[in-house]
Amino acid sequence: MKRNGFCIWLTGLSGAGKTTISKKLIERFKEERFIEAMDGDEIRKGLSRDLGFSKKDRNEHNRRVIFCTKLLVRNGVIVNVALISPYRETRAFAKTEIPNMMEVFVKAPLDVCIERDPKGLYEKALAGEIKQFTGIDDPYEEPLEPDLIVETHKETVDESVDKIIAKAKELGYL
Amino acid sequence: MKRNGFCIWLTGLSGAGKTTISKKLIERFKEERFIEAMDGDEIRKGLSRDLGFSKKDRNEHNRRVIFCTKLLVRNGVIVNVALISPYRETRAFAKTEIPNMMEVFVKAPLDVCIERDPKGLYEKALAGEIKQFTGIDDPYEEPLEPDLIVETHKETVDESVDKIIAKAKELGYL
Repeated sequence: MKRNGFCIWLTGLSGAGKTTISKKLIERFKEERFIEAMDGDEIRKGLSRDLGFSKKDRNEHNRRVIFCTKLLVRNGVIVNVALISPYRETRAFAKTEIPNMMEVFVKAPLDVCIERDPKGLYEKALAGEIKQFTGIDDPYEEPLEPDLIVETHKETVDESVDKIIAKAKELGYL
Repeated sequence: MKRNGFCIWLTGLSGAGKTTISKKLIERFKEERFIEAMDGDEIRKGLSRDLGFSKKDRNEHNRRVIFCTKLLVRNGVIVNVALISPYRETRAFAKTEIPNMMEVFVKAPLDVCIERDPKGLYEKALAGEIKQFTGIDDPYEEPLEPDLIVETHKETVDESVDKIIAKAKELGYL
C-alpha cells in the first residue's frame, strides 16, 4: 500500500499562530486525505500524564509525539505537529525519525505573542505564576535552517497555509 | 476521507502466539492496506523508556499504546496490537477508546507456553530472575467475552488468521 504521508512540523513561540495554521490546514485537506493534528491537551493526556514542563520532561514528551507521528506518517497520514518544541536538538531528532518531515518556523516577535496571549499564559508567566515558560524564563532556540518560515504578523493565515502547501509540493510530498 | 480503520487486539500469555499471528496478518494485508503492528521493543522504546513491568507501569504503557492505536485507527489504518495485556480493566478501557476494536484471546495452556518459551523468559521467571511475570507470579485475567478465541495449540497459524479475518468481516470492519 503506497501513499505519501508527511509531517508539517510547526515550531514557534506560544501565540505565534501554530494552532490557527494547523486548524486551517486540516480544513484544506480533510475531504481528500487522512490528516491528524498533534496539538495540545489530548496529546498530553494520552501520552504524557506523568510529565511537566521542565526541559527533561518536554524532551521526553516530544520524543513520544515523534514516535506517534512516525507511525502515522509511515501509514500514509498527513500529520501537523503544533508544538513550541523550543530545542534544536529535539527538532533535529524528529527529522531523523520521521519520514518526509518539513520544519516550518512559525515566527512572530515575542511582544506580538505577548499581546495576543491567546491562552493567558504569558500573563501568568510574567507574574511568575508559571515557571520555565518559553520566551520568558526558558529559551526558544530559533531554527537555523527551517524548510520554511511563515511570519504571522506580516501575512494572513491563508497566505501562510498556501506557502506551506506550495513547499510540500516542492519537496515532493504532495 | 473515509476508510475503515480497525484494531485487532491480541491478548494472551507470553508464548501464546500473538506475534506469530500478527506477522501473518501483516503479510496478508500489506499489499492492499496500511497496517501497523503494536508489538515489542520498538513500542517500548518509543513510548515508555521510563517504565518497567509493575502493574502500574504496564497499565501506563498500555494506555499510551491505546492512544497511538486510536490515532492510527481513526486515520484508516489496521492496527494489530500484540500485548499480553493481562488486566481486564485495561482491555475494557481500550474498547472505550479505540474505534472498531476486536478483542482476540490468543489462548494456549500455560504449560504449552512454557514449553515453547520463544524468548527464554519463562526459564528466567521460573528461576526467579524476572519478577512479576504474567502466568508465573503475576495474574493473567482471561477475557470473559472476547470477540474471538483462537487456540494456538489446536489450530495452525493460517487457521487462526482466517478466523480473525472472518470475524472482522462479520463485524463490518472489512
